[in-house]
Amino acid sequence: MRMSCSYFKTWLWKVWEFCKEDGSRVKFSLKAGLAVLLVSLLILFQAPYEVFGINIIWSILTVAIMFEYTVGSTFNRGFNRALGSLLAGILAIGVAQLALCSGQVAEPIIIGISIFFVGTVTSFLKQWPSLVPYEYGFRVILFTYCLIIVSGYRMGNPIRTSMNRLYSIAIGGFVAVFVNVLVFPIWAGEKLHKELVNSFDSVADSLEECVGKFLKDDGSEHPEFSTTVMDEFPDEPAYKKCKATLNSSARLESLASSAKWEPPHGRFCHFFYPWSEYVKVGAVLRYCAYEVMALHGVLHSEIQAPYNLRVAFQSEIQDATNQAAELVRSLGKDISNMKRTLKTSLLKRVHSSAERLQRAIDMHSYLLTACSEPPDNSSKPLLKQLSHTLSLTPNEIPDQLADLDGDGLVKNLNQQSQNIESGTPLPAAAPAESYHEQMRKQSRRLHSWPSREVSAFEEEGPSNMDLLPRMKALETTAALSLATFTSLLIEFVARLDHLVDAVDQLSRLAKFKYVGL
Amino acid sequence: MRMSCSYFKTWLWKVWEFCKEDGSRVKFSLKAGLAVLLVSLLILFQAPYEVFGINIIWSILTVAIMFEYTVGSTFNRGFNRALGSLLAGILAIGVAQLALCSGQVAEPIIIGISIFFVGTVTSFLKQWPSLVPYEYGFRVILFTYCLIIVSGYRMGNPIRTSMNRLYSIAIGGFVAVFVNVLVFPIWAGEKLHKELVNSFDSVADSLEECVGKFLKDDGSEHPEFSTTVMDEFPDEPAYKKCKATLNSSARLESLASSAKWEPPHGRFCHFFYPWSEYVKVGAVLRYCAYEVMALHGVLHSEIQAPYNLRVAFQSEIQDATNQAAELVRSLGKDISNMKRTLKTSLLKRVHSSAERLQRAIDMHSYLLTACSEPPDNSSKPLLKQLSHTLSLTPNEIPDQLADLDGDGLVKNLNQQSQNIESGTPLPAAAPAESYHEQMRKQSRRLHSWPSREVSAFEEEGPSNMDLLPRMKALETTAALSLATFTSLLIEFVARLDHLVDAVDQLSRLAKFKYVGL
Repeated sequence: MRMSCSYFKTWLWKVWEFCKEDGSRVKFSLKAGLAVLLVSLLILFQAPYEVFGINIIWSILTVAIMFEYTVGSTFNRGFNRALGSLLAGILAIGVAQLALCSGQVAEPIIIGISIFFVGTVTSFLKQWPSLVPYEYGFRVILFTYCLIIVSGYRMGNPIRTSMNRLYSIAIGGFVAVFVNVLVFPIWAGEKLHKELVNSFDSVADSLEECVGKFLKDDGSEHPEFSTTVMDEFPDEPAYKKCKATLNSSARLESLASSAKWEPPHGRFCHFFYPWSEYVKVGAVLRYCAYEVMALHGVLHSEIQAPYNLRVAFQSEIQDATNQAAELVRSLGKDISNMKRTLKTSLLKRVHSSAERLQRAIDMHSYLLTACSEPPDNSSKPLLKQLSHTLSLTPNEIPDQLADLDGDGLVKNLNQQSQNIESGTPLPAAAPAESYHEQMRKQSRRLHSWPSREVSAFEEEGPSNMDLLPRMKALETTAALSLATFTSLLIEFVARLDHLVDAVDQLSRLAKFKYVGL
Repeated sequence: MRMSCSYFKTWLWKVWEFCKEDGSRVKFSLKAGLAVLLVSLLILFQAPYEVFGINIIWSILTVAIMFEYTVGSTFNRGFNRALGSLLAGILAIGVAQLALCSGQVAEPIIIGISIFFVGTVTSFLKQWPSLVPYEYGFRVILFTYCLIIVSGYRMGNPIRTSMNRLYSIAIGGFVAVFVNVLVFPIWAGEKLHKELVNSFDSVADSLEECVGKFLKDDGSEHPEFSTTVMDEFPDEPAYKKCKATLNSSARLESLASSAKWEPPHGRFCHFFYPWSEYVKVGAVLRYCAYEVMALHGVLHSEIQAPYNLRVAFQSEIQDATNQAAELVRSLGKDISNMKRTLKTSLLKRVHSSAERLQRAIDMHSYLLTACSEPPDNSSKPLLKQLSHTLSLTPNEIPDQLADLDGDGLVKNLNQQSQNIESGTPLPAAAPAESYHEQMRKQSRRLHSWPSREVSAFEEEGPSNMDLLPRMKALETTAALSLATFTSLLIEFVARLDHLVDAVDQLSRLAKFKYVGL
């Protein structure tokens, strides 16, 4: 008993949270209840019942089917239902008259054929790409046609049947629209507007989160990478939102197509408001978000740039990120406030910070390839030694490696430090690490990001041949991963231009208020 | 007249093409026509009409509303309609009896309140996340309840009303399911299966197309980059398909949820076929496709790696791409044939080709940073000269530039060629180009990928400060763009492991036939 009571409490709490999250949910429910109640009153009270009769039952059906969440989709559905019913009614009356004239035997045959024909044609048309949005309308045509023509056949007078049906549908439609628009209206346009603004914020948040993690991560607390790609990354709330943004295209489109049906209202107070531009801006934003996804990919790649290297470019990366995120947020804020401001200076700052980053990479690009000078004579012995090692049997390798470690590797490293005469620190300079530490790291890096067991690939005989040369190769690749990260960041910045353009286009077409600097 | 005739012909041609593209479209239309015809016969023929009466009209409505494209969604809708009608019927009978007992005055009040209550509760419940798929069921509950209780109130005997309604719905539902399953069934599972296989192909195609273009592009025929991000890239058919794959999540999910309702059929001949795994595999594939999008971004970035450099790594890049695309295709083929094969050797080959690529980049990584040795004394004068130039007024710059060109730049370049003692060619070696050619190129590269006019950013006074230093910076960045491209390619390969895992999981759960090597 107490169990079920506490269960009930948690359930109640969930419902409460659900309502609080978006107040319009409760409003919508109450509105729907009100609409069916209103239309039922027409049949419950004696006076209207005497006028309309039992036919008013079709109004209830209409309300129940037409009543949608937003004003726009209610209008859309209402339009479909009205036009569909009208067309079906006209067609049914025509065919019924024709059937009536053709005699008692031919009548059901003609009706049957016409039903088959209408069923086939409507079902075919609703698959036509440009007619897909009117799917519901074709459904309405089909069943209204069948209902009118069949009941006309059985009860005679198809004209009266269809007229009755049409006016009861009209009443139902009127009640649905009336309640939906006048009682706490929920506008699809408003929702679309908010959703787009939120996407801007989530892209900016996700970018900052991603870069922040990249810079913070000193490799000390790398968790075991899980084998599933689709893990939730619970410590990255913004990433989740950004991913939701990527999958939002269908939602934005349906909201926009609903919003087109809405009359001017509230802030969106002129006719032919460019709702489709919202979809376009959303698409460009998604285009930027792909770069964030790629950044996120680099962040969670097993090949990681050494911490020292990341620190070396920290300020430039951070600066470019902050500027870019600020621009994205400010674009979102502009849309939110329906203002149009010049983004030139902000954009310029973003560009110049991205350029600073480029220049920094350029200046210190030797860091990215520090371990691999052009193959001159002095380093060749090492390479030879390595290739010698490769031809050995697996058992012999450890000894050889010890040799290499004690001799060639250190020599090579010394050489490198001599080559680099500037004062900048070596990336993740290896000599401090023990040999075993290195090997452990290597084996972790062997297979990039995904954490497949190495053994899984060792079935086909001695594949150690592949194991060794990577040692050095990946050290550089790791450094180049920083280059990748920054390139992606720069590409993100480059795409911001398009975003600014798209937002500008939107604000011009939507006549946002121009605010000078 | 002739005009309209030719217009009609093109229209007819389009319809024909549309039908040929997917034959099941016509089948579906004919089936829908057949279903409504069958149910209409019950009312058109005298014998069944005498049994069922005019109530059979509800069957027509049921067929028209229930008849969906695939078997699964018809079942799903049928279930919603059946359960909804049943619940509404039971509830309506209960409330109607209660209202009857409470006297003539209270009866309409109780009925009205109950209608409001049912309207509110169903509308609220259908927004609850886990109940969203049953949205239609709640709609059915609402209007069935209203219809039964209201007509029961007006015509008496709510039990008979609801029974009549229930059996006519049952007849309609039976006809719809009967026709849908037995006449050319269109299975959602089959569609899902095909769609997933196609996505594999389109990702592989898009990867190859993207890399192919990257390697082929010698910079000679760079078209003007259009300012819109959303251009169609008409010469990249695979890219378009790949983008469609990215937006297919909602479609796959709805197909999978329909497929769950389908009985075992054809190739999918055991119960509880793991349709949800298809969605998961689709998600992992999308995850891989994000990398292709990023590659595509680099391909269309304004910062382009010099042709020579690309050629240098051509064979490795091409090899890794081919292997990766082959693996993706073979995964798609396995799913298509419902076979389970060991991917170890293929995966190994992909890995080793990716490693060869890494090693190649590593060996020649000096190429990527050739222009920027660590700032030693000899190159400092040039830098000083540059910064001196920066402080000049715009008018003075050309002269200074000429100086720079004749003196510092060439000196610098010579120095570079001395520094690099190996025989490998310099990336896009500059000395051969005229100074003006260089400047033209620079100004094109100034603003990466998006082709904003430079002038757009020159409003705020002499911003030439930004113009010059980039000259060198971007030469390196351009080279690093190759590193980015390869990193992304390698990341794509890394993600393939997850794809292999996901497909393996699917094939185990779906009991694909195991085929040894």
